[in-house]
Amino acid sequence: MEEVKLLGTWPSPFCYRVIWALKLKGVKYEDVEEDLVNKSDRLLQYNPVHKKVPVLVHGGKPILESTTVILEYIEEVWPQNPLLSDDPYERATARFWTKFGADKSPIFIKFFHTVGEEHERARKEGQEVLKIMEEQGLGEKKFFGGDKVGLADLAFGWIAGWLQAMEEAAGVKLLEANMFPRLEDWIKNFREVTVIKDNLPGHEELLDYFRRLRERLALLSTS
Amino acid sequence: MEEVKLLGTWPSPFCYRVIWALKLKGVKYEDVEEDLVNKSDRLLQYNPVHKKVPVLVHGGKPILESTTVILEYIEEVWPQNPLLSDDPYERATARFWTKFGADKSPIFIKFFHTVGEEHERARKEGQEVLKIMEEQGLGEKKFFGGDKVGLADLAFGWIAGWLQAMEEAAGVKLLEANMFPRLEDWIKNFREVTVIKDNLPGHEELLDYFRRLRERLALLSTS
Repeated sequence: MEEVKLLGTWPSPFCYRVIWALKLKGVKYEDVEEDLVNKSDRLLQYNPVHKKVPVLVHGGKPILESTTVILEYIEEVWPQNPLLSDDPYERATARFWTKFGADKSPIFIKFFHTVGEEHERARKEGQEVLKIMEEQGLGEKKFFGGDKVGLADLAFGWIAGWLQAMEEAAGVKLLEANMFPRLEDWIKNFREVTVIKDNLPGHEELLDYFRRLRERLALLSTS
Repeated sequence: MEEVKLLGTWPSPFCYRVIWALKLKGVKYEDVEEDLVNKSDRLLQYNPVHKKVPVLVHGGKPILESTTVILEYIEEVWPQNPLLSDDPYERATARFWTKFGADKSPIFIKFFHTVGEEHERARKEGQEVLKIMEEQGLGEKKFFGGDKVGLADLAFGWIAGWLQAMEEAAGVKLLEANMFPRLEDWIKNFREVTVIKDNLPGHEELLDYFRRLRERLALLSTS
């Protein structure tokens, strides 16, 4: 088997998507931690256009941008434990929701980065997005992928781990109690999947990470 | 065969991508023109989240958002005349460039919509993007997809038809003479493919469309 390397950085949820996919499929890989402040020559060589992680290197060739492209590649090369259904319509639906989540991600970044009115607006917009995901994307299913974790579940994984730490660091709840019952169930179900459970950043470490980030952002906005 | 309908609007290049893919594969379909000012109940029912075109309806089920999702669906359901290589790495590369083009599209919209300094900045940024596409995406190949039109070629199709009309309507050249020799060749090659040649909006109609759009934008910015 050709060598597989994952260039990533802790605790990027984009990198975790790739980690989860590789682990779900039982693909052995070498984890290469990148320092995004001092980008390595290796990263610049593999991803000269975007200079971002994650980059999956398989047999010396880089697969990159976006994580959806990487996940589709993983699915095609290692078809075991599929992330996508055999049915083209279900595949399109999973891709639709994955794209929907990617398009809406600036709202959640804004929710975390802003204060005051802008923050409150982002919080409301974020809740509207989560409501659409819950009602139209998840519905009565256990996972977005049906009865098994699929592409869209991995894409939304940050909601099941990162969001709570972001909320705590920001001191504001996005997932207000009882507002998103199905999404709350999904978070529980997702975190119980063995591969996910074994590959989640610790809550305290995440909280510490986001608290430091908030402090740095506050410094920036008052300087 | 199940009924295929395409809900679209003239002269959306997003809709043309789907038209080209269906025609390349010889799929018969019904063309349904949507009025985006007065959206039909049909469109709202099929695409309640985004309310946008194109929507491909196959056997009564809507496939939507983004056009890449629709093109992947078409590729899976009608594999003849493939838009993607059999090789997972080449497939990932085609998806990478398609995504790159989609991510950069706001620059070209800005180039068309703005005036003065902002316009000049968008023009320079647009040229940098085109340079990356030409040197790193296209290289020495006839098409982005190699020796045949593929997914990325369809995604970049607007450069081969719409851009010239946009430039003329805006009175500014983005593709300056001799600056993008390979991209110029690609435009010629792309327009010569029978299915593309037979399914391009007329230049005069496009020019008229973009001139009217510019007038409306000018009205907005002075009112």
